[in-house]
Amino acid sequence: MTETASRPTLEAVAARAGVSRATVSRVVNGGEGVREPLVERVRRAVEELGYVPNQAARSLVTRRHDAVAVVIAEPETRVFADPFFALQLRGISKELTAHDSQLVLLLTEGPEDYARVGRYLAGGHVDGALVFSLHLDDPLPALIRGAGVPTVFGGRPGWADGTRGDTSTVYVDSDNRGGARDAVRHLVGLGRTRIAHITGPLDQTSAVDRLDGFRDVMVDADPRLIVEGDFTPAGGERAMRELLDRCPELDAVFAANDVSASGALRVLRERGRRVPEDVAVVGFDDMLPVAEQTEPPLTTVRQDIEEMGRLMARLLLRGLATAPSSVVLPTTLVHRSSA
Amino acid sequence: MTETASRPTLEAVAARAGVSRATVSRVVNGGEGVREPLVERVRRAVEELGYVPNQAARSLVTRRHDAVAVVIAEPETRVFADPFFALQLRGISKELTAHDSQLVLLLTEGPEDYARVGRYLAGGHVDGALVFSLHLDDPLPALIRGAGVPTVFGGRPGWADGTRGDTSTVYVDSDNRGGARDAVRHLVGLGRTRIAHITGPLDQTSAVDRLDGFRDVMVDADPRLIVEGDFTPAGGERAMRELLDRCPELDAVFAANDVSASGALRVLRERGRRVPEDVAVVGFDDMLPVAEQTEPPLTTVRQDIEEMGRLMARLLLRGLATAPSSVVLPTTLVHRSSA
Repeated sequence: MTETASRPTLEAVAARAGVSRATVSRVVNGGEGVREPLVERVRRAVEELGYVPNQAARSLVTRRHDAVAVVIAEPETRVFADPFFALQLRGISKELTAHDSQLVLLLTEGPEDYARVGRYLAGGHVDGALVFSLHLDDPLPALIRGAGVPTVFGGRPGWADGTRGDTSTVYVDSDNRGGARDAVRHLVGLGRTRIAHITGPLDQTSAVDRLDGFRDVMVDADPRLIVEGDFTPAGGERAMRELLDRCPELDAVFAANDVSASGALRVLRERGRRVPEDVAVVGFDDMLPVAEQTEPPLTTVRQDIEEMGRLMARLLLRGLATAPSSVVLPTTLVHRSSA
Repeated sequence: MTETASRPTLEAVAARAGVSRATVSRVVNGGEGVREPLVERVRRAVEELGYVPNQAARSLVTRRHDAVAVVIAEPETRVFADPFFALQLRGISKELTAHDSQLVLLLTEGPEDYARVGRYLAGGHVDGALVFSLHLDDPLPALIRGAGVPTVFGGRPGWADGTRGDTSTVYVDSDNRGGARDAVRHLVGLGRTRIAHITGPLDQTSAVDRLDGFRDVMVDADPRLIVEGDFTPAGGERAMRELLDRCPELDAVFAANDVSASGALRVLRERGRRVPEDVAVVGFDDMLPVAEQTEPPLTTVRQDIEEMGRLMARLLLRGLATAPSSVVLPTTLVHRSSA
C-alpha cells in the first residue's frame, strides 16, 4: 500500500475480446459505429476483467461525470454544527442518488480555500455545482462562473437583488420576507406591542429578507429592538441579553431562526421571564427536534429545508438539458406554546 | 444559466501569446522542452485571460489532482448525526488544507451506492482515499482496490485481522482493547462485581476489540451482562433496558462509546438508579460536549479522534511518495463523576 494494485488496461480488454484498442475505446464511450456482436464481446470482456475506464480520458469525450459538487460557503466546523446544512444535504443526496449521480461535498476551512474549490470545479470532475450559504461579496460566485460549470444556488445570491439584473442565475429559496411578516403579525395579533427582532447575519439575503418582513409589519420599530445575531444558539443568547439590557419592557421576540431562538429562550429563563406570559417568542425554520424540545416548544415559521435541497438538485440535473428558472417556496406558521 | 459562461480556450491563449497550441499545452503541463522566454509569454497570456486548463486533460499527463476523497461507510444521515465523524473530518480537513489538497466527501444513502463511489474513485478525480467506519464483509475495500487509488483506513479493517496476512493495508486506529481493559479495571478497582457491557455494532473491529478488552478483565463474565448496542443514544437506551430486565442487580456498566452511555444514563435515571452510587458508568471516546454534559458527567476512555483524522491524511499524502505503515494511538482514562 497505500493500495497500488494494478487495474486491468484497455489493452487487456482488447486482447480478451479479440478486437482493436480503438474498438474497445469506442464501445466504452457509448458504442456508436460498432457492430452489435462486437459491442457484446467487448462488454463481456470488460465485465470479466473488471475493467474501469479511466474517466479522465472518457470524460474528455463524453463530458459527463455522473457527479455533482456541493459547496457550502461556511467553514466545515459550521457545516457539521448546524442541522440546517444536514437537512439540505439530505434532500440533495436523495435526489442525486435517485439519478445515480455522486454527491461530492467540497469542504473548506474558510474563504481562503475557495480558489482551490474553483480549481476543482474547473477541473472536469463534476457535471455541476450546488452552492449555498453565500455571503455578501462572496468570492465563490465569480470563481464558479470562471469554472464554467452549471450551478444552482440555495438562497437568493446577494448580487441578484434586481440592481444588477442577473436573471440568468438560478436559485431555490423560501419566502423569507412573507414568512417573517406572518410571524410578526401573529405576535401583533396576540396584543404584543414591544416586539424585538434577533436577526441573522446581515451579509446573507435570508437574514436581510426576514428583517424586511419584520419591518413591513413594525413600520415604526424602535431601532433598539433590533439586534444582529448569527443564526447560532450562542448568537441568540448574546442578542437576547443585549435586548433585555436595552429594553427590559419588551414583550415579544421574533428570532430569525430556531437555533438562535433556543439561545434566547435560555436567557429569558435565566432572567426569570415567563414564556409566553411575559415574553412571547417565535422562531423560523421549524427545525426538528430543536423546535419541539425547547422550553416551552417553539412557535415558528416552517420552511421545507430538505425539499429545497431536493429541488436544487432537480433543477441542476434538468438544467443540464434545458434552462430552468428559480423557485421560491412558501412558508407556513406552526403554532406551539412559545407564542 | 445554469451558468454557461464560456471559459477562455487554449486557442485564445495561443493567439494571445503568439505561439502554437502545442507550446501552450506543453507549458500548462509543466513547461518541459519549452524555452524560458516562451514559457513567460504563455504564462502571462494564461494569467491575463484567466485561462484554467481542463484538468481532465491535464491530469492525464500529470496524474495529480490535489484532491483526496473521504468515504464513510455509513448513510449520510448517520454521518451528520454522529459527532465522531465531524471530529475525524475536522482533523482530515486541517491536514489536507495545510497541503492545499481539496477534501472531497463522497456521501451515499447506503451500501447500494458503493459501486458508484468506486467509479468516482477510479475516474481520475482524486489522488487517494481515506475510508472509515467499515463493517464486516463491507464491499468498499474491494471496490477501492479495483479503483487502484492509494488508500488509508480509519480503524483496522475487519479482513486485516492477521488471518489473511494483508500487511500492506495502512490504517490508523486507537488501542481499543487496551482502553476497554482500563475502563473495566477501573470499575473493578471501585469494588464493582456485576459489571455489564453495552457493545458497539459487532460487525466493526472497534466494537469487537472493546468487547475483547472487557473479556480480558471479566474472564468469567456472565453472558447475560453483555448486550449489543450500535454506537447511538437510542441503541444505548435499548441495551440498558434489556440489561436491567435481565440483571436488576448489576452495579456497573461499561458502554462502548459515550453517546450510547448517554442513552444508558437516561434509562438508569428513569428507573431510579443513582449513578455512581447504585450503578457506576464508564464510556469510551471522551466526546465533548457529550461526556461533560451527561447527568452526571461521564468517566470515559479518551481517544484523540481529530488526531486520528489528521494522521490518516498525513499518511496518505506521505504515501504518495513512500510506503507508510499503520499507526495505533494510545488511549487514556478520564475521571469524572459517573464512576
